[in-house]
Amino acid sequence: MGFNLEETISLLTRTPAAFDVLLRDLPEMWTLRNEGEGTWSVSDVIGHLIYCERTDWLPRVKVILEFGETKTFEPFDRWGHAKESQEKSLGDLLHEFSRLRSENLRALRALNLRAEDLSRRGRHPSLGVVTLAELLATWAAHDLTHLHQISRVMAHQYRDAVGPWSQYLGVLQCAGHSSS
Amino acid sequence: MGFNLEETISLLTRTPAAFDVLLRDLPEMWTLRNEGEGTWSVSDVIGHLIYCERTDWLPRVKVILEFGETKTFEPFDRWGHAKESQEKSLGDLLHEFSRLRSENLRALRALNLRAEDLSRRGRHPSLGVVTLAELLATWAAHDLTHLHQISRVMAHQYRDAVGPWSQYLGVLQCAGHSSS
Repeated sequence: MGFNLEETISLLTRTPAAFDVLLRDLPEMWTLRNEGEGTWSVSDVIGHLIYCERTDWLPRVKVILEFGETKTFEPFDRWGHAKESQEKSLGDLLHEFSRLRSENLRALRALNLRAEDLSRRGRHPSLGVVTLAELLATWAAHDLTHLHQISRVMAHQYRDAVGPWSQYLGVLQCAGHSSS
Repeated sequence: MGFNLEETISLLTRTPAAFDVLLRDLPEMWTLRNEGEGTWSVSDVIGHLIYCERTDWLPRVKVILEFGETKTFEPFDRWGHAKESQEKSLGDLLHEFSRLRSENLRALRALNLRAEDLSRRGRHPSLGVVTLAELLATWAAHDLTHLHQISRVMAHQYRDAVGPWSQYLGVLQCAGHSSS
């Protein structure tokens, strides 16, 4: 169950295309509705993934490599994506997410990380000391947390339509866990 | 939030390709491990989706149209997929799922269901009376419940690797809900 860089990159490479195939040109009933006030639609989630590509993963990798524990990561803005999500179509957001992810994975490979780099330490504003391997594992698991979330947000739109089957559908029992 | 046949078919059309793009040729660490004894791996889930295409959705649609409430659906075997899942590669399972889904959606369209057909009633062995619209809505929501499940099963493999970030990842707080 340990961290493996190639296995991590394999997953990070595939998720943008999987979101694209699932969501592009899907009726807006599935993609623009949320789970109630203050919650995210599918479009908001893709906007958030874009914002993370820009401000979170690779920038933090570079902070660890350059400054180690001496420089705390910039805090992450959970609503930083809001403007872009509202202004762009879902199709454009999906395209932008794929483009940024490819660019960031190219840059990650260009770092030629060695096994010993993976244990280098950085400082998270709330979590304290973290390692580079933990940051990279979280990048992949974060894609999965939002795949988990969008399947729940979409299923929620059919909560009533499924009638008595709702009790058999695990996704409809999921109340969400934190924000996603 | 009501049932809509075209919106339902839109989703059912896309999910097999989304599973394929996400999972094909992914390292086995992600696809062959489960969440512990008696739980399903990603491969088991795709085997289950195949088994449902063969024995559940369209066969039950036909029972409703032909017999209404007078004939109870065949009970569903939750482990009916086990043999096929073990004997086939994940690549073959993904291909089979796509093939069967296309075939079933062609057959569904060929039924030319009218609005009044959607309220026709059938009899589920445990849930009692259900409607055709509820059955079709469940077909789509069931894809989402298993997308929700596989994202959780995969994230579980990195539960330790993410270190202190685990508390921020919603998918790692999800204990599952019933079996999926």
